Amino acid sequence: MPKTVVMAKGRVEAFSDGVFAVAITLLILDIAVGEDVGNGDLLHSLGQLWFNYLAYAISFLTIGVMWVNHHNVFSMLANVDHGLLYRNLFLMAVVSFVPFPTSVLSRYVHGHGSANMRTAVVLYGLTMVALAVAFTLLWGYVYRSANIRNADINDKTVRAEFVRSAAGTGLYTLATVIALFVPVLSLALFALLVVSFAFARPGTRAT
Amino acid sequence: MPKTVVMAKGRVEAFSDGVFAVAITLLILDIAVGEDVGNGDLLHSLGQLWFNYLAYAISFLTIGVMWVNHHNVFSMLANVDHGLLYRNLFLMAVVSFVPFPTSVLSRYVHGHGSANMRTAVVLYGLTMVALAVAFTLLWGYVYRSANIRNADINDKTVRAEFVRSAAGTGLYTLATVIALFVPVLSLALFALLVVSFAFARPGTRAT
Amino acid sequence: MPKTVVMAKGRVEAFSDGVFAVAITLLILDIAVGEDVGNGDLLHSLGQLWFNYLAYAISFLTIGVMWVNHHNVFSMLANVDHGLLYRNLFLMAVVSFVPFPTSVLSRYVHGHGSANMRTAVVLYGLTMVALAVAFTLLWGYVYRSANIRNADINDKTVRAEFVRSAAGTGLYTLATVIALFVPVLSLALFALLVVSFAFARPGTRAT
Amino acid sequence: MPKTVVMAKGRVEAFSDGVFAVAITLLILDIAVGEDVGNGDLLHSLGQLWFNYLAYAISFLTIGVMWVNHHNVFSMLANVDHGLLYRNLFLMAVVSFVPFPTSVLSRYVHGHGSANMRTAVVLYGLTMVALAVAFTLLWGYVYRSANIRNADINDKTVRAEFVRSAAGTGLYTLATVIALFVPVLSLALFALLVVSFAFARPGTRAT
Repeated sequence: MPKTVVMAKGRVEAFSDGVFAVAITLLILDIAVGEDVGNGDLLHSLGQLWFNYLAYAISFLTIGVMWVNHHNVFSMLANVDHGLLYRNLFLMAVVSFVPFPTSVLSRYVHGHGSANMRTAVVLYGLTMVALAVAFTLLWGYVYRSANIRNADINDKTVRAEFVRSAAGTGLYTLATVIALFVPVLSLALFALLVVSFAFARPGTRAT
Repeated sequence: MPKTVVMAKGRVEAFSDGVFAVAITLLILDIAVGEDVGNGDLLHSLGQLWFNYLAYAISFLTIGVMWVNHHNVFSMLANVDHGLLYRNLFLMAVVSFVPFPTSVLSRYVHGHGSANMRTAVVLYGLTMVALAVAFTLLWGYVYRSANIRNADINDKTVRAEFVRSAAGTGLYTLATVIALFVPVLSLALFALLVVSFAFARPGTRAT
Repeated sequence: MPKTVVMAKGRVEAFSDGVFAVAITLLILDIAVGEDVGNGDLLHSLGQLWFNYLAYAISFLTIGVMWVNHHNVFSMLANVDHGLLYRNLFLMAVVSFVPFPTSVLSRYVHGHGSANMRTAVVLYGLTMVALAVAFTLLWGYVYRSANIRNADINDKTVRAEFVRSAAGTGLYTLATVIALFVPVLSLALFALLVVSFAFARPGTRAT
Repeated sequence: MPKTVVMAKGRVEAFSDGVFAVAITLLILDIAVGEDVGNGDLLHSLGQLWFNYLAYAISFLTIGVMWVNHHNVFSMLANVDHGLLYRNLFLMAVVSFVPFPTSVLSRYVHGHGSANMRTAVVLYGLTMVALAVAFTLLWGYVYRSANIRNADINDKTVRAEFVRSAAGTGLYTLATVIALFVPVLSLALFALLVVSFAFARPGTRAT
């Protein structure tokens, strides 16, 4: 069996920071007003974008929280091996994907029929589930790989993060299932979840 | 009460540098000529974009000055905690937002009616106010958090920056209110403010 | 004859990480649904993008594997000289180019006629060949330039990587030639190749 | 007179690397085929983009050479002061601008009339002149500011680079003036200039 490649974590962090930064900044490309707005109507047009602003805020905060989470994972690592690298790449693929469901959601959340709205919310929810799954896989791998962790990180700390991620996966799955019946409640839950992840940070980790 | 996460500032700087770099480079996507320009008319079409070039220059310089400011904040920090992290994330959200009002301003500043022009200038002004508020929050937090500062940074230095930011917020608010009555004067003030922030740098800080 | 410029590798890595991160994140801009989807039809529209998702996944994984490969090259270097710099720049040009053939492939792989499909697959294949050639040039240069390598890297290790790259070039060329006759088989080979490059990592290198 | 801010050069390099990486990667967004290409016509459509590929190659190489140049400037610095920071920001503004004239050139270089072609080439040339001017300002500033340079860098080395940049400015200005009369010759000169800057690197600098 071939041994795994082990690399310093610096470049993995730099690449990941780049992906996070580009994905979070591309979100703005989805906010635009048309070319042919009659005089005095620009204010109205800007107002009609209210949901785009809200979706921008939620997705921005979501990617931001993921970035903080990502930092948390890497602060516990001494090195990166092959298995972690590809789990990280999967996470990056989902992070880069976020602008697409955000765009669909902004466009179809109102004025295009309730069936489309439901579809848009479910697509967004599935992406949130994929983000949570990606983090659960990452934490699970760190839990099983004591050899790539910093010496002072014990199993208990990592297991707590793994459980947290798995619980997040469950909550996002629940919110996505709810979207099949009451999409607007589901949206409120997505906003609530990201805000609570942002504020309720139990762990302490001084790197 | 949970303790706050404390992290090294390196990755926060790297992520922020990425957001600044992407946002400042996306500004160019707003400058374009149409497909169907008759022979000999390209020069004229390029000339009609004069305000796009000007808006590009002002927004570029604004984000550039913000980046210098951001460096100034972080040069005073030894560590980053949870509270600073989310205040920094709010600033990043506003920085990423800048290409949108710049785009609206470029398009509606002339030839689309005075009411639309006023709306576009006010939207731009509100974004400038939000930038100034984000910095004021950041400096205010650094002022209250001696524990994350470098040992050689005293309260007086930080308070001076906080006051500077608060004054900037006031000036941008004033310029935005003026936009309701004389939009073109407001635009001149935005340009003047960013140029004066770029050149009149009173503090000295050797990192 | 002028001597070559020798520079530290840190900035070359930072610039390259930026290019990889932007190119990999721009791939998502190619996935979008139209504006005028009737009520209840959004699900169908999203389903019709199945090949866009697949192309996104393949190209994302391809750029990701290239990034791992790139890290592998640079982990063996102590310095970067002028010759390596421009070979790296050629690689960056090909990496930045990937979103274009991915976009063409997504659009023309079905529903636009078999001749167009074949063209799209060949274009994609040629880009893969160019990527493999760029890496072969890079490894060949590292093999010939013992003076820029880390002291503990011997010729044998580098030659193994060079041979691997050359073999990859051969395989991608073969898959591209196959595209002229059975495009769909060629696509399956591109997916198979990138997955096998991702999983079958024989070398070991602890940086 | 206020003292100037002095900062470590690390973050200025990181921000600049980000701008270079984003600008160089955005160039690909200008290469695209239309939606409605009939069966068997995709190959022809791709062929018609030949000038887009060429413009991509020239602009990519130009930004790449500028990046190498930029590295060269910073390898001679120990610190960055306020004056250098804003000269660097001006350079970044021009680098970010490059995708626009590249796009105009790709579109109007043939099939849209000779007057438009001349305009497009002159616009591209003026951008090249602005790049050369930005570097000349940067080198001139480094020449006058011995206090921010590395101790082992003497005036002679810096003056040689300054003269080189000034000569580059002259050559690009000449090529741009030629564009007014024989645009196609001017284009050949732009390609020749960037290739010769890439290959003929007289200085030696081991950082």
